[in-house]
Amino acid sequence: MSMKMREKIDKLFNPRAVAIIGASRTIGKWGFTFTLHLLRGGYKGPIYPINPATDELLGIPAYKSLEAIPEPVDLAFILLPADKVPAAVDDCGRRGIPACVIITAGFAELGDRGQALQREIVLAAKPYGMALVGPNCAGMISAEPMSLYCMMQPVFPPAGHIAVVSQSGNIAGSFLYMLWKQDIGVSRCVSVGNQAVLTTEDFLEYLIDDEQSRVVVAYLEGVHDGRRFVDVARRLTRRKPLIVIKGGKSERGVAAAKSHTGAIAGSSAVFDAICRQCGIIRVDDVEDLFDTATAFLSQPIPQGNRIGIVANGGGWGVLTADACIDAGLDVALLPEETLRRLDDRLPPWWNRQNPVDLVAGMSRGALYKAVEILCQCDRLDGMIVLGFGYGNGAAAALSFLPSGVVPGSAEYITASHESDRRGMNFLVEVMAKYRKPVLLASEFGVGAERDGNNPILDLRRKNIIVYPSSRRPAQVMARLVRYGQYLQQEGD
Amino acid sequence: MSMKMREKIDKLFNPRAVAIIGASRTIGKWGFTFTLHLLRGGYKGPIYPINPATDELLGIPAYKSLEAIPEPVDLAFILLPADKVPAAVDDCGRRGIPACVIITAGFAELGDRGQALQREIVLAAKPYGMALVGPNCAGMISAEPMSLYCMMQPVFPPAGHIAVVSQSGNIAGSFLYMLWKQDIGVSRCVSVGNQAVLTTEDFLEYLIDDEQSRVVVAYLEGVHDGRRFVDVARRLTRRKPLIVIKGGKSERGVAAAKSHTGAIAGSSAVFDAICRQCGIIRVDDVEDLFDTATAFLSQPIPQGNRIGIVANGGGWGVLTADACIDAGLDVALLPEETLRRLDDRLPPWWNRQNPVDLVAGMSRGALYKAVEILCQCDRLDGMIVLGFGYGNGAAAALSFLPSGVVPGSAEYITASHESDRRGMNFLVEVMAKYRKPVLLASEFGVGAERDGNNPILDLRRKNIIVYPSSRRPAQVMARLVRYGQYLQQEGD
Repeated sequence: MSMKMREKIDKLFNPRAVAIIGASRTIGKWGFTFTLHLLRGGYKGPIYPINPATDELLGIPAYKSLEAIPEPVDLAFILLPADKVPAAVDDCGRRGIPACVIITAGFAELGDRGQALQREIVLAAKPYGMALVGPNCAGMISAEPMSLYCMMQPVFPPAGHIAVVSQSGNIAGSFLYMLWKQDIGVSRCVSVGNQAVLTTEDFLEYLIDDEQSRVVVAYLEGVHDGRRFVDVARRLTRRKPLIVIKGGKSERGVAAAKSHTGAIAGSSAVFDAICRQCGIIRVDDVEDLFDTATAFLSQPIPQGNRIGIVANGGGWGVLTADACIDAGLDVALLPEETLRRLDDRLPPWWNRQNPVDLVAGMSRGALYKAVEILCQCDRLDGMIVLGFGYGNGAAAALSFLPSGVVPGSAEYITASHESDRRGMNFLVEVMAKYRKPVLLASEFGVGAERDGNNPILDLRRKNIIVYPSSRRPAQVMARLVRYGQYLQQEGD
Repeated sequence: MSMKMREKIDKLFNPRAVAIIGASRTIGKWGFTFTLHLLRGGYKGPIYPINPATDELLGIPAYKSLEAIPEPVDLAFILLPADKVPAAVDDCGRRGIPACVIITAGFAELGDRGQALQREIVLAAKPYGMALVGPNCAGMISAEPMSLYCMMQPVFPPAGHIAVVSQSGNIAGSFLYMLWKQDIGVSRCVSVGNQAVLTTEDFLEYLIDDEQSRVVVAYLEGVHDGRRFVDVARRLTRRKPLIVIKGGKSERGVAAAKSHTGAIAGSSAVFDAICRQCGIIRVDDVEDLFDTATAFLSQPIPQGNRIGIVANGGGWGVLTADACIDAGLDVALLPEETLRRLDDRLPPWWNRQNPVDLVAGMSRGALYKAVEILCQCDRLDGMIVLGFGYGNGAAAALSFLPSGVVPGSAEYITASHESDRRGMNFLVEVMAKYRKPVLLASEFGVGAERDGNNPILDLRRKNIIVYPSSRRPAQVMARLVRYGQYLQQEGD
């Protein structure tokens, strides 16, 4: 990518002023919705809706044309009917607007006639070297510093460090919603649409040096230029993790992808080979993507695949051991020294193996001590800790009794909440201190919102998820391990 | 199982009065916690806490001994130290108490010495033919008619139709919590502990005829009596689905299970063969269990594996097609007649294939109409519908504008909410009318609680889950299909 294009993508992500060409007063029209979302997202620069038929739109002044705008504009969204788009692009170019996002559909995805119209856009943009996104896309987000939220879907995740590049606006919007509703932040998002000018590879390349973006996720159906993709992906994955969902694994999925973006999905096995070669973490589902992206943001990268499990009850320990083995991890035998150190801290009936089963009713202090002892063991590379978040439930049950019936209950309730909070702080410290991932799982991940389980919600704001599942943390751990192995190989 | 034992298990699940032997005033002791949970659960009969040292406990009268209780008791929970349990069992027998649950641990799970003490319990119970649960268990729940909630964990799901039999109290408690916090009801739950008298097989047999229980789920580590298990499971699965998590798939999981319940976990492959033979649905994880149990409660059983997918945007359709193929389902080609009927209802650019992609921005009415047309197609056995629950988000974004800025916005917000509600009612009707499962997936499954997305929360109360995943509904559909195939074979 040329230096010039990089500078223009900088403007795309950090525009000083935005125009919406085809803004509308009519609820339900995209020209309305995009203006609404830009306002709702709190964009920090001036917004210039352009609509020749009105002076006002959604409570802000509207403009008859680009010419009527008093100041320079860095970014224009184009929502006009397809046949008017090429002229609008040329107009933007003449006005010196460096970046455009074309939302309008009805181009190459429709076949021959649309192809021709799309070529007109490319030709219109070319003399200006414009950074052009789309057409047929769902918009973009750039959280810092301008608070630019301009997607088709009403999604407003906080500013953070996940970057999203998507060949499906639908998947981008869904993923952003899932992040938003779980308080996880994004840096940039771009729905690449038909990629008439800027391609997936361009954005991946841009993100290599984007400091706001620490984890990059992509939804792909096809790859434009295989060689460039491999080159960019390798450069990216040495700096930060790249997590990819590839749509079109199956023949039916390929057919659906073809009708969706016109992408030739290519062989899933070939793509798997590319992922291995480039250190790309491949996942299958938006939920997997959520789990994996948050873990890469919050967890140290493990040095190997030897996992310690701490359970406060047998069943979860058994299932998590099974899930780890399924995921290709090693539920390592504990060395004698670690067993002895645990003996000093745990009651005599503890099971003396991995998973360490603390048995119901053990004090929380013992659980956390056990986690630290495992973190100190040089035969373990990562931990999965089960049962986090119990204090809240115990406190809620006790709150059922009328006050005064049981002496000391108020203090016990406070202590229950405190114990989870201390546990939370302890776990965060331990991860940082020993540089080993510590993943958490318990049923309390499910009810945290409803129960006001603040330690779990606070952990989530630190990108640490309490998975209501044994399978999910095991899979995530396996992905952390594979990325660590890739980095080690590359470092050799 | 003898008629007598069945009658005693009836008392266990429907006791007119409950005693807690070893009740305590001390917060944090199990004798306190179980009494608290019984009160919190709203048990409808009299509760008799027994503690020689006090006249009052948690605000209710306490009794010095069983003898001091004025009325007949049907069920006693025993929480005494292990060495006092055999005498307490005998005491219960002499007082004519037909059913006991022994929470206390420290028996067969500890090896030889514990084995001997456990034999004493069995001998004490035998002359009375007592229905005895445990020892070393986490208690039980029987929601209707007595509202008996007496588990170690503070879990109070509403009355409903899922029955739980668990060889791990920890898994039972976790699963109940997940049901509770998502408004899904249970009928019975029993943590079988060491199974000194009543075994997993006994409870599975009992549940065959229990009308409150429409779906049975079990967590197993081992099977006591393989032949009886197969016999009971086959009789059960002809009447209602049996969904099983088997802990100890891997060698490490087997070792953990051995230290947990002393179970010899046996080969996972052998257990898979038993599942196929008996129509048991095997799952790996509590989240899978939740997904699968709720689907079996709410969905018709499909007649085959041919699935139709309706998407309101391409990416989810592609991923769901991939996930269905991964799960062994057939994303069937649509017959010409169905294509023509869809042509009449959908805009000219629809993709004319399965997944049916309505493209962003299509009216909700078209989506639901498309679902009904697919349900009417005799080449499809079940449907997965993507994107449900969008109206809420659109309404929320519009609510951001100060009132009066956009004419008609209040009406639009109301209409957005109404559209999801009508859609919800429509989908429920369609499932009932065409007797085909219709599973729902969208990102809005994640934020429903926080967003007050009432159509999604109301669907959940009907045991219909909006999965924030394409993988999960595909897996669940595959399990519905396999159970349908099993029933068809058995019916031949």
